[in-house]
Amino acid sequence: MVKVDLSGAKSFFIGNGPDYSAAAAAHKVLAERTGAGADFLGWPALPAKIRETELDRIIAAADKIRSRSAALVVIGIGGSYLGAKGAIEFLKPDSGAGDTRVFFAGNGVNPDSLYDVINQLGSCDFDVNVISKSGTTLEPAVSFRIFRDLLNAKYGSKANDHIFATTDAKKGVLKSLAEANGWESFVVPDDVGGRYSVFSAVGLLPMAVAGIDVKKLIDCAVEEFKSLDERNESNPAWQYAAARQNLYAGGKKVELLACFDPKFRWMAEWWKQLYGESEGKDNIGIFPASVEFTADLHSMGQYIQEGERILMETVVRFDECLSALEVPYENSDADGLNYLAGRDLGEIGRVIENAVIEAHISGGVPCMTLTVKKRNEEGLASLICFFELACGISGYMSGVNPFNQPGVEAYKKNMFRMLGKPGAV
Amino acid sequence: MVKVDLSGAKSFFIGNGPDYSAAAAAHKVLAERTGAGADFLGWPALPAKIRETELDRIIAAADKIRSRSAALVVIGIGGSYLGAKGAIEFLKPDSGAGDTRVFFAGNGVNPDSLYDVINQLGSCDFDVNVISKSGTTLEPAVSFRIFRDLLNAKYGSKANDHIFATTDAKKGVLKSLAEANGWESFVVPDDVGGRYSVFSAVGLLPMAVAGIDVKKLIDCAVEEFKSLDERNESNPAWQYAAARQNLYAGGKKVELLACFDPKFRWMAEWWKQLYGESEGKDNIGIFPASVEFTADLHSMGQYIQEGERILMETVVRFDECLSALEVPYENSDADGLNYLAGRDLGEIGRVIENAVIEAHISGGVPCMTLTVKKRNEEGLASLICFFELACGISGYMSGVNPFNQPGVEAYKKNMFRMLGKPGAV
Repeated sequence: MVKVDLSGAKSFFIGNGPDYSAAAAAHKVLAERTGAGADFLGWPALPAKIRETELDRIIAAADKIRSRSAALVVIGIGGSYLGAKGAIEFLKPDSGAGDTRVFFAGNGVNPDSLYDVINQLGSCDFDVNVISKSGTTLEPAVSFRIFRDLLNAKYGSKANDHIFATTDAKKGVLKSLAEANGWESFVVPDDVGGRYSVFSAVGLLPMAVAGIDVKKLIDCAVEEFKSLDERNESNPAWQYAAARQNLYAGGKKVELLACFDPKFRWMAEWWKQLYGESEGKDNIGIFPASVEFTADLHSMGQYIQEGERILMETVVRFDECLSALEVPYENSDADGLNYLAGRDLGEIGRVIENAVIEAHISGGVPCMTLTVKKRNEEGLASLICFFELACGISGYMSGVNPFNQPGVEAYKKNMFRMLGKPGAV
Repeated sequence: MVKVDLSGAKSFFIGNGPDYSAAAAAHKVLAERTGAGADFLGWPALPAKIRETELDRIIAAADKIRSRSAALVVIGIGGSYLGAKGAIEFLKPDSGAGDTRVFFAGNGVNPDSLYDVINQLGSCDFDVNVISKSGTTLEPAVSFRIFRDLLNAKYGSKANDHIFATTDAKKGVLKSLAEANGWESFVVPDDVGGRYSVFSAVGLLPMAVAGIDVKKLIDCAVEEFKSLDERNESNPAWQYAAARQNLYAGGKKVELLACFDPKFRWMAEWWKQLYGESEGKDNIGIFPASVEFTADLHSMGQYIQEGERILMETVVRFDECLSALEVPYENSDADGLNYLAGRDLGEIGRVIENAVIEAHISGGVPCMTLTVKKRNEEGLASLICFFELACGISGYMSGVNPFNQPGVEAYKKNMFRMLGKPGAV
């Protein structure tokens, strides 16, 4: 479970503070599926369901890919890549030694980016995982044509064996193509939106290929969602949702998600989609932004400390680092750091976290902290389940439908018209 | 030169629109060094100066490193790494084939991150470039101790030959260490703040090691700053500075820097420091944020289109991509994309850019566009010079000192006290 600490936000709350009765009501609407977007509430049950259905087959497919290929090219956009990308960057070392590399393509049409992936593949064996509910989203569909051509050129009649489709269970262009060509397929569930799909094959197949223990992850997620069903003020999702809505009502229009571990960078991107897409509608919503500390203390730090007072800050913390590393002792002490010699960097880092939080509060920025034990599968499951539930509750509290995204269509409509798609107006 | 297009912001301007007389006055104060922070106005002359002083020696040092080492570890934080990181990610392919790899360390104290770099170095030959004006900033100083230990263990008495110090010309801990140990040194100029230092050795040595043509870059920058000295409304820096200040006055408190080329990601981080640190003070300032399109149209797109109307958007565009790639034709046309077959992805991308800009404007977000020809050294020089000058002008227009960063001290003060640094209170 995520531990939420609201003490650094307390002095900034307006009115009677976080409205837990509103959080309770929102949780009830969510659990009983009586609110807007209720058709997309399959995600709390998703970990338990996937364990009973596709999980073993996902792991078997990943093992097959890992045993034969140096790389997997994942083709998807938005919710069809951010969960896996976030999880892989969060859990795997940069060197990725020994693991099959996972490339993400199809989240744009930039030819230079596509060539970058193609060049990195070189002459390596690779597989493709195309992820799209419909198969008609322009960016991934274009990339998929290109990578299919590459597979055909490389593997000839065996190319179809190198394609894995994660798509609708029954209908759509990609489903039809998969059936016609005999691609192994996995399901994008009907009752789960893209930004909530990380515990389906959408997220799990790329993660498993990268060497993440997805069984462990799912086991933890099942337990987490159980724990998070508690209906009282000690529910961390209530605390976070109610606190941020209170701060927003008090004029804090931007939420900065901060973490002192650079490995969290892409989880912050996943979080931005989750919260931005769920809450940013009807001309309201907290604007989600992120920073990486301590690096960004020397870039955004000035603004946070003394800029426009529209910020709230949420700091993701870990009780422990994975490794230990001591500050070396140096005879001359020319740099004056011997007072730190022999102390562990992880411990120093946690002191710095406290120093930063104290500084930002005194500068007028409310700070909430979210703590899990470690940057491992268990910590990741805790964070994902927590953020998903809190987002649903927070969205309902603000009065929007947290499970639609009507605004995403606007650019698509223009795009299809301007590109001259047959029938587009 | 950057071409600025304000047509997508026009309908959102308040009052009489962008205040060019205020921009003119700010430019005058800046050029005549009569405003706050005038001691830090060495950056417009920096490209011409570096060409006459250290540039050849920087290139020679880079050649030496490239010829003998597989990696350079750059140790620095904030302005001591973001320029080089941004430029390298912007100009070099991800594969980095054939070039010496550049790692950035010391922008935090996370032990897992340091191990990640150490593990990637493996048994390779490497050099270290430590970048710090004083040598006492905690994060880089700690990392430097650790990497010095590694160099000593690896190279013994030759270790000093593998260290390059970029620091104050005359004083400070790092300068003393460099002199005592015979490290080759480069200068962090006295009259240039960290966030404006990219055209000094701070930015240029890591760039040159990564294989960037820094001579070309500097030649272009010299010309750019000359062109940008034009004192009338056709100066693109005036246009951007005056437009964003007008939009800010009208309640657009967040500026989203968007680019359709993922290679721009770290230049956006450099931009965030430049603008956030320069303008975010005295409880005012536009909050700088960034998005990467089209990827983030499927995450932040919903918020941009329909969320709280506090956004202005600035889109960095390129006239051309570096490579060409056509949408393949497919007999079955199962995915319905044959209407695009044979068309270049770069051209499709530019149509999508127009579609997105039109959508966002119609959703209530003012859009400015900044266009350069290509993602190459020339384009980079144009963007950097433009952003630097516009930032100084914009900062003076808003009434702040754009060249200090007093707020960065707050966390440091707490940190040194909590860590028990001798003498800290």
